[in-house]
Amino acid sequence: MARQGRAEGRIIGLVPTMGALHEGHLSLIARAKKECSPLIASIFVNPKQFGPKEDFAKYPRAFESDSEKLKQAGVDVLFAPDDAEIYPKEFSTYVQVEGLSEKLEGRSRPGHFRGVTTVVMKLLQIVQPHHAYFGRKDAQQARLITQMARDLNVDAEIVVCPIVRESDGLALSSRNVYLNPEERKSATVLHRALEVAKEELASGVRDALQLKDAIQRKLGAERLARVDYAEIVDAESFEPVVRVSKACYVLLAVFFGKTRLIDNLYVEPKAPDVDELVFHL
Amino acid sequence: MARQGRAEGRIIGLVPTMGALHEGHLSLIARAKKECSPLIASIFVNPKQFGPKEDFAKYPRAFESDSEKLKQAGVDVLFAPDDAEIYPKEFSTYVQVEGLSEKLEGRSRPGHFRGVTTVVMKLLQIVQPHHAYFGRKDAQQARLITQMARDLNVDAEIVVCPIVRESDGLALSSRNVYLNPEERKSATVLHRALEVAKEELASGVRDALQLKDAIQRKLGAERLARVDYAEIVDAESFEPVVRVSKACYVLLAVFFGKTRLIDNLYVEPKAPDVDELVFHL
Repeated sequence: MARQGRAEGRIIGLVPTMGALHEGHLSLIARAKKECSPLIASIFVNPKQFGPKEDFAKYPRAFESDSEKLKQAGVDVLFAPDDAEIYPKEFSTYVQVEGLSEKLEGRSRPGHFRGVTTVVMKLLQIVQPHHAYFGRKDAQQARLITQMARDLNVDAEIVVCPIVRESDGLALSSRNVYLNPEERKSATVLHRALEVAKEELASGVRDALQLKDAIQRKLGAERLARVDYAEIVDAESFEPVVRVSKACYVLLAVFFGKTRLIDNLYVEPKAPDVDELVFHL
Repeated sequence: MARQGRAEGRIIGLVPTMGALHEGHLSLIARAKKECSPLIASIFVNPKQFGPKEDFAKYPRAFESDSEKLKQAGVDVLFAPDDAEIYPKEFSTYVQVEGLSEKLEGRSRPGHFRGVTTVVMKLLQIVQPHHAYFGRKDAQQARLITQMARDLNVDAEIVVCPIVRESDGLALSSRNVYLNPEERKSATVLHRALEVAKEELASGVRDALQLKDAIQRKLGAERLARVDYAEIVDAESFEPVVRVSKACYVLLAVFFGKTRLIDNLYVEPKAPDVDELVFHL
């Protein structure tokens, strides 16, 4: 179908998901729907991106309602392979973005990104989309996939879309269902801490240590929050910065009980060599 | 061009080479020419598949005569990128076939196959061929590339072509030019040892140790030959076999002076569950 579509000059879109669809996914679909036809969505809970102690078995699965949502949203084809179709016996080839995949999320979740880049490369080969859509909540993942596509000359544009949030600021995530009511309430501290960083930056603070102090104070005040990392990194290299002077991410990874959530604020100069910043929260 | 060709329903062929072209390469071109149009050949001496102590700097380069040969052989497009085009600054993504890439050639040449699979994946993405052609002299390489293409769902058929030999049996290799006259004469022992294996097998010997003994005796009689490995392996897994009962490779890697040469004999049953063998030497 992809080859046929390409031959006919149509713009093929792919939105890869692990199912348990929420408004974040649907925002990717809506964006892709505007830009592509046919639009393909995939649902595959990729075992290779879960560590042995992670939540692969209990990761939420909702195939019936997911497939109804995708249909309603105008997806033309749903690709929902089983594990053996993606990883047949004797499967042994992996795609890895070295360096970038070992930091931050990669350090907290060894092997995670190798699983992500491998399955995304496979999906890009199977579907052969012109555009593939990813959410910016997983900022490091989006950066890695962009790097992989560039390095391996994949003939597809990686499109990174904004974070979608609940009305109280919590970023949508399929893992939010794990939170008990108390944890759910605490989890808004991710957004509140990023708001603090934004206010500090807007008031002229550029020193990363000072910003991190303010963030840590906010997170530390929330009894149920256990910080995995809170970093300010260069948006290209994902290396920690000393001062915010070019495009950066403020990255948070925080446990609430057993549930680990991530969130981020993307900051960039309003124009080259201008100190004023633009915020994407 | 590839996308255009695909859109027009043409069969695109790719013959990737490192240049220093010999009759082995030209046999791939001839085969591809029969099956594909347009036919693309690449010349790229891939730094990432050479170890730090290997012969990247002195690897033979003959761009003028190579490009003339390719033109004569009917190649439609020659793709000869420079290093910075294939590996721009910040390049950091690698493709690796785990397990298979760590044995035999992979053990003697750490990192070699990671470089091979990475560059071949890139070439397959850039050219988007329907068929890509490789020589069977590099048997493990051909097996790895086949596995990679399958595992990553690459939309291309990997075609493996016979070994081409000099009249005295030496397999063609760009590295044969390194041999001094005495070493060149000795190097025919690769083919002679494989002939011994073939005769033993034809006479009914199936025990791998007995076959390896006969091969080692032949190689050992050649003063200038220093054996790196001589193995009989399953043609799928490249694991050593105890008995030859299904498709196998007899694999040789031997030094003559500083020059390391490889050669192999491919053996398969004439029919399923039949003891009689077919030899590809």
